[in-house]
Amino acid sequence: MFFPELIEIGNKAKQAARQLAFTSTEAKNKALIFMAEALLKNEEEILRANSLDVKAAEDTGLKKSLVNRLKLSSASIAQISQSLHEVVALRDPVGEGEVWTRPNGLRIQQTRVPLGVVAMIYEARPNVTVDAAALCLKSGNVVILRGGSEALESNKVLARVIAEAAEASGLPSGSIQLITETNREWVQQLIRLNNYVDVVIPRGGAGLIQTVVTNATVPVIETGTGMCHAFVDQDADFEKAVPVIINAKTQNPGVCNALETMLVDEGIAEDFLPLIGEELQKKQVEIKGCSRTCEILSYASPASEEDWVEEHLDLILSVKVVPGLNGALDHIYRYSTKHSETIITENYSKAQRFLKEIDAAAVYVNASTRFTDGGRFGFGAEIGISTQKLHARGPMGLRELTTIKYMVYGDGQIV
Amino acid sequence: MFFPELIEIGNKAKQAARQLAFTSTEAKNKALIFMAEALLKNEEEILRANSLDVKAAEDTGLKKSLVNRLKLSSASIAQISQSLHEVVALRDPVGEGEVWTRPNGLRIQQTRVPLGVVAMIYEARPNVTVDAAALCLKSGNVVILRGGSEALESNKVLARVIAEAAEASGLPSGSIQLITETNREWVQQLIRLNNYVDVVIPRGGAGLIQTVVTNATVPVIETGTGMCHAFVDQDADFEKAVPVIINAKTQNPGVCNALETMLVDEGIAEDFLPLIGEELQKKQVEIKGCSRTCEILSYASPASEEDWVEEHLDLILSVKVVPGLNGALDHIYRYSTKHSETIITENYSKAQRFLKEIDAAAVYVNASTRFTDGGRFGFGAEIGISTQKLHARGPMGLRELTTIKYMVYGDGQIV
Repeated sequence: MFFPELIEIGNKAKQAARQLAFTSTEAKNKALIFMAEALLKNEEEILRANSLDVKAAEDTGLKKSLVNRLKLSSASIAQISQSLHEVVALRDPVGEGEVWTRPNGLRIQQTRVPLGVVAMIYEARPNVTVDAAALCLKSGNVVILRGGSEALESNKVLARVIAEAAEASGLPSGSIQLITETNREWVQQLIRLNNYVDVVIPRGGAGLIQTVVTNATVPVIETGTGMCHAFVDQDADFEKAVPVIINAKTQNPGVCNALETMLVDEGIAEDFLPLIGEELQKKQVEIKGCSRTCEILSYASPASEEDWVEEHLDLILSVKVVPGLNGALDHIYRYSTKHSETIITENYSKAQRFLKEIDAAAVYVNASTRFTDGGRFGFGAEIGISTQKLHARGPMGLRELTTIKYMVYGDGQIV
Repeated sequence: MFFPELIEIGNKAKQAARQLAFTSTEAKNKALIFMAEALLKNEEEILRANSLDVKAAEDTGLKKSLVNRLKLSSASIAQISQSLHEVVALRDPVGEGEVWTRPNGLRIQQTRVPLGVVAMIYEARPNVTVDAAALCLKSGNVVILRGGSEALESNKVLARVIAEAAEASGLPSGSIQLITETNREWVQQLIRLNNYVDVVIPRGGAGLIQTVVTNATVPVIETGTGMCHAFVDQDADFEKAVPVIINAKTQNPGVCNALETMLVDEGIAEDFLPLIGEELQKKQVEIKGCSRTCEILSYASPASEEDWVEEHLDLILSVKVVPGLNGALDHIYRYSTKHSETIITENYSKAQRFLKEIDAAAVYVNASTRFTDGGRFGFGAEIGISTQKLHARGPMGLRELTTIKYMVYGDGQIV
């Protein structure tokens, strides 16, 4: 039933994982440094392959923003190489843990160990090939990469260069493998390869993630869509509200932690909306408003149901006037994708209620939703932002690429 | 597509979860005490319903051991009631966490919160109905229960009694719900009810777990089969080896942490096998051996491939003579279900290699595999033993029924 070539990849990964699991941090760091150097040494070949991808993308009329995501340069390769040195500097979670002793003398040691074999399924950015491989490797995991077909030529060279470097440094062959088949059936099989793959991490648009979640039998860490809200409460300090809203909406509108809907307390709507509206206009943000918003702001266009449901990922903000905190909580309860939500208020009790009652990976008071990020949380790096509740929630760093194992020291204990 | 009655259950659960998530520990403990008392008060009705299940099971010729699992008595109801008081005494993980402050002053508080709605799918033991509900409730989760049809009449009464008691104590209606439809399509839909259910925990035989893992789109915590091994090394102390093997195999052979295969170092096979064989015979344990085992023990019958693969869950032990630690590691690597494995040795380096190289939830030196249990690990109670690597591994207590949420305190920070 499974493609024999895929089983071969799975077998190689499993063999490598058995050894990589207890490879020392020193040896893994050495591999990362070899990989960083190899990227620089092979810059020319990488750029040549990348230009093929870029040309193909332009020929097929791919959106300019997507072509830009695809494009590598001397500078971006240097940056990718540098990011590997940053991974070297991160603390290796493998082997950390706690220990306790039971009354019968049994010593139980809960120890972090790698997950094993991680399958990463992602879309057009070729830098993910290197970033994901580096984070998996540092945490002792073998990685099977499956990137978007638009970046195939770039990924082929990148993956070969770093895999060869890792092997040359002494890591087991098969620690980093790329699936080069573009047939989608390969993804379908990969996410059902329970005997070889320990976890699947999809990174990309809602369509990709939905496909993986629906069809996988291997456990999945869902990363994802962020329908993020800000509620500007009656007791908000406008001097905090305006910069936070502008930042959350405009600093990088194409990402999952960007603001999509602003909820405004009806008590301040007439004062606050013209103020924020002016600033949004300066930043070329289009406003889709509820009927009350449109009454107050002549330049707002009416929002449809879609505008409350779907991420715009663009310079568009949905705006709704709500009857106080309860109205905001109800709206968020209904439309939230449980990623990041923020309240702007000076009222202690309302801030605490918002923090407690909103069910999301990250809930903020008086701060931008854009902070939901492994780097900004202080984790050093991130493999994605989990919007599910099992295993990991919010930004995932190296620790989230590990599991635990109980090592139990006895001297003959029986039940 | 979904049964409207199931959606109604889902909706009720979701509504209850929104409130139960921030119900105080005091209020949850009060509910548990009400539930404990209600079970005692309704003993007669529970026993009457249970006798219907038992009679039906006997009429259909169910195995005696399964009928016994099903049977309740005055004493067992008292014990179930008592177990609720033990859950009251457990520490509530909700609200625990850690906090750190970023250089920009943002205070990030990682806090434990309930998962939300937990669906428990289990087989014949009616006590699971109460145990699972109690652990979910204590950790702030709403539970949807789906027990085996053999225990339906008992479960109906048990679930009604505890659900009414929880509601009478002040918890939201819908905190505990039982699915009483025996149509299997209900399970198929329940495990795909992503908008209402946060996690599915199947507890039962390999068939049930396989069905859930294969068909669920809701995240699953796999609990499971334990094909547990003991390796008696050349340097084993026989005075530890014999009691550990006898305990692991015979103390309760029907459970997942019981021993299934014993691997014996070829260097001591001729000395150790007759010794352990005699003790096993005293305990009526049948031995299925490799050819070398059968040479040494005339009363062993030849093992088939099946005997290395399938749990016996009975007084049967598979025995294989292996060429030292490497042989043992290879056999376990091939046949382990990654539950619990033990080595009996006095050799430091071999003990460490076994602990490091075996990939399982619990790895022991000189102790019985029967210790893999929430109670025996010191967790106070357990909802199951996870054999997967995501979220939870090994015995799962209250903490494993929670996820995290980042509460972030700002004063106007932007990116």
